[in-house]
Amino acid sequence: MGNDATMTGSRRIYLDNAATTCPLPEVVHTMAEASRDLFGNPSSSHSFGPSARHRLEDAREFLRGTLGAARVVFTSGGSEADCLGIVGSAMLRPPGRVLMAASDHPAILNCEPLLSRLRHRTTVLPVTRHGDIAPETLFEALGQDVRTVALLHGHNELGTLCDLQELVELVRRSAPEAHVHVDLVQTYGKLPFELGDLDVDSVAVSGHKFHGPRGAGFLALSSTAELAPLLPAGGQEGGLRGGTENVAGAIGLAVAAEYAFSHQADIEPHTRQIADLVFGIVQQALPQAERLGHAERRLPHILSLRLPGVIGQTLQQRCDARGVAFSTGAACHSHDGDTGDGKAKPKGPPNRVLAAIGLDDRAAREVVRLSFAGDTRRDDAEAAAHILVEEAQRLLDSAPRGSAAGPR
Amino acid sequence: MGNDATMTGSRRIYLDNAATTCPLPEVVHTMAEASRDLFGNPSSSHSFGPSARHRLEDAREFLRGTLGAARVVFTSGGSEADCLGIVGSAMLRPPGRVLMAASDHPAILNCEPLLSRLRHRTTVLPVTRHGDIAPETLFEALGQDVRTVALLHGHNELGTLCDLQELVELVRRSAPEAHVHVDLVQTYGKLPFELGDLDVDSVAVSGHKFHGPRGAGFLALSSTAELAPLLPAGGQEGGLRGGTENVAGAIGLAVAAEYAFSHQADIEPHTRQIADLVFGIVQQALPQAERLGHAERRLPHILSLRLPGVIGQTLQQRCDARGVAFSTGAACHSHDGDTGDGKAKPKGPPNRVLAAIGLDDRAAREVVRLSFAGDTRRDDAEAAAHILVEEAQRLLDSAPRGSAAGPR
Repeated sequence: MGNDATMTGSRRIYLDNAATTCPLPEVVHTMAEASRDLFGNPSSSHSFGPSARHRLEDAREFLRGTLGAARVVFTSGGSEADCLGIVGSAMLRPPGRVLMAASDHPAILNCEPLLSRLRHRTTVLPVTRHGDIAPETLFEALGQDVRTVALLHGHNELGTLCDLQELVELVRRSAPEAHVHVDLVQTYGKLPFELGDLDVDSVAVSGHKFHGPRGAGFLALSSTAELAPLLPAGGQEGGLRGGTENVAGAIGLAVAAEYAFSHQADIEPHTRQIADLVFGIVQQALPQAERLGHAERRLPHILSLRLPGVIGQTLQQRCDARGVAFSTGAACHSHDGDTGDGKAKPKGPPNRVLAAIGLDDRAAREVVRLSFAGDTRRDDAEAAAHILVEEAQRLLDSAPRGSAAGPR
Repeated sequence: MGNDATMTGSRRIYLDNAATTCPLPEVVHTMAEASRDLFGNPSSSHSFGPSARHRLEDAREFLRGTLGAARVVFTSGGSEADCLGIVGSAMLRPPGRVLMAASDHPAILNCEPLLSRLRHRTTVLPVTRHGDIAPETLFEALGQDVRTVALLHGHNELGTLCDLQELVELVRRSAPEAHVHVDLVQTYGKLPFELGDLDVDSVAVSGHKFHGPRGAGFLALSSTAELAPLLPAGGQEGGLRGGTENVAGAIGLAVAAEYAFSHQADIEPHTRQIADLVFGIVQQALPQAERLGHAERRLPHILSLRLPGVIGQTLQQRCDARGVAFSTGAACHSHDGDTGDGKAKPKGPPNRVLAAIGLDDRAAREVVRLSFAGDTRRDDAEAAAHILVEEAQRLLDSAPRGSAAGPR
């Protein structure tokens, strides 16, 4: 593995692994092979069907085992899996409420219009300054009319891990019939998780966040989870998701998952140490730098930084020009603010997540996100941190006195 | 291109291209390359984003052009595109009726429960003995309360092409506000089609039916089409379909489409001649053989055969054992009737499509479907036809006198 893509001719350092990761060579290779050799429709009863079907089921069985789930439903990615878990569970229940959080990923929050058309009300919960739901907030919102609760395990921008166990226990106490759906997109393969340990009904996983395929993900279900399909089509996936199965995608997911789980014990400390290293370098040069997200409950690979006085977008662009790629927030939204040439225009509304954790517009613009992976080299991260510091200092030096650079 | 997959050690002849096709080597190769080199998230504003985004938009623009469409929305396949076109259009309109046909693909028919939850009624129209909607049937069903009309351009089992122009004109006259969605899954790339020529609002296309990728398809839209998303997520695809874009899939679609359109003039007569050749061989040996579907309005590559006195499933299994793969119907449904080892059990209910065209249970069991592609070799098809005839004759010879083999 290596992020030494050289499209521009010079080596670039990719520190945006929460947005997407570089697929493993063996994922790409195995998928190409499967596309050629297993092209039969798994639903075909002639001899081209079973070979594809068996490999599909092997992949499903492997993925099921990684989570201790009862069933795995393949989807086109994490967003579809979120939508299926949330809307699909609410659909089978009488009109009621669906709970989610103000800092949630759009794959969760944007279920609202569809839920509303299906006569469910959505309650968007306020969050802590770390971006997770406080137990007391959840407790107050719960009730017998709650049909589905959506929880984001690891926050994609802030890195905060919610206290899943406590939150799920609260749901089970106050709304025992509710379906508990967890977005595991940033945590799958990176941290241990067992579906059964927590009495969760469904979890959403996305392949491209752990060096797997784009356009492939899955929803893992408990034995008692009940859903209606959003895309019923030909009744594939146990009736929960129709359409000819993407066999190569399923196999690619399994290959990537196998790598992630067998290297978890190494990758987790690797990315954690890199995040700490980068933050250390930044903090030494810029003592005012602040690491967002929860101090203990956090994803190892995400570093959300607020640099008072520095416009994150400008910093990001300058570092990008020097070959260091990171983001100012999630990439998982449309690029409405982009000009089409890759230069993002300053966006009108402030970042929704940062507003939800209480940052004002100015503070919200001072945030950048760096995210690491197993293939992030320590020396690259170190070099990137120094470039980030240099550019931040230049921006601070060039700022008019008493303006953004001043004390706040 | 060549279908000489040799998983069992011996060369097999694949005649089930309506179920799925073997991807072009250049599709597989280009997708693997794109997965590696363009792994950036198209929504990222740093330098890894635009390279992926530009290739995504190039693919979109090419595909848009192949249909004269105003917009192209990438989906996970034809089934999702059907669902988005049908349910997405109905969702934006007040409760009313959605029209579809009894012989439609399950990707269309199985939208019913979701439509019903969204307070739309579904009217399933009876079909002709060729499997298409008679104009007078459509005319009678139309009315101001019709929100969406779903039409299947080329029938996946019977090969009949509906008379799109006449049907669309009828809709425009009696229900001008209705959204007209056309399933183009079997016809895209194989026959000329321009969205604007027919005043159609949306068409669904599936990559793996024309040697493109699995898990990738698109919905092409007219300039006036209005839809609500089924999977909104992060607002990608102009707000009509969220989730990180499958860049490699989009590129693979464009590569396959370019091949299909640039070879259409050769492939169309090639598959038509092969279908006629096979039918000729069968008919000469078994004069009672009947070709289903419309005699003139038909897809070039699909041969739906009824062989009186021969159980299609048995014939299919025996030919499969001799290396010739075809189907007894569509593969686009769950394999509930399968035992898991590829040997389909006789299914309880008769084939829904064949019942819709008026075949009784016995006649419906006498039907097999062979489907061809640009990579089907003429000598293979000829050899397959002789094997099919031999096996059919054996079955007829072994049948008790006066039983299924007798005159009907």
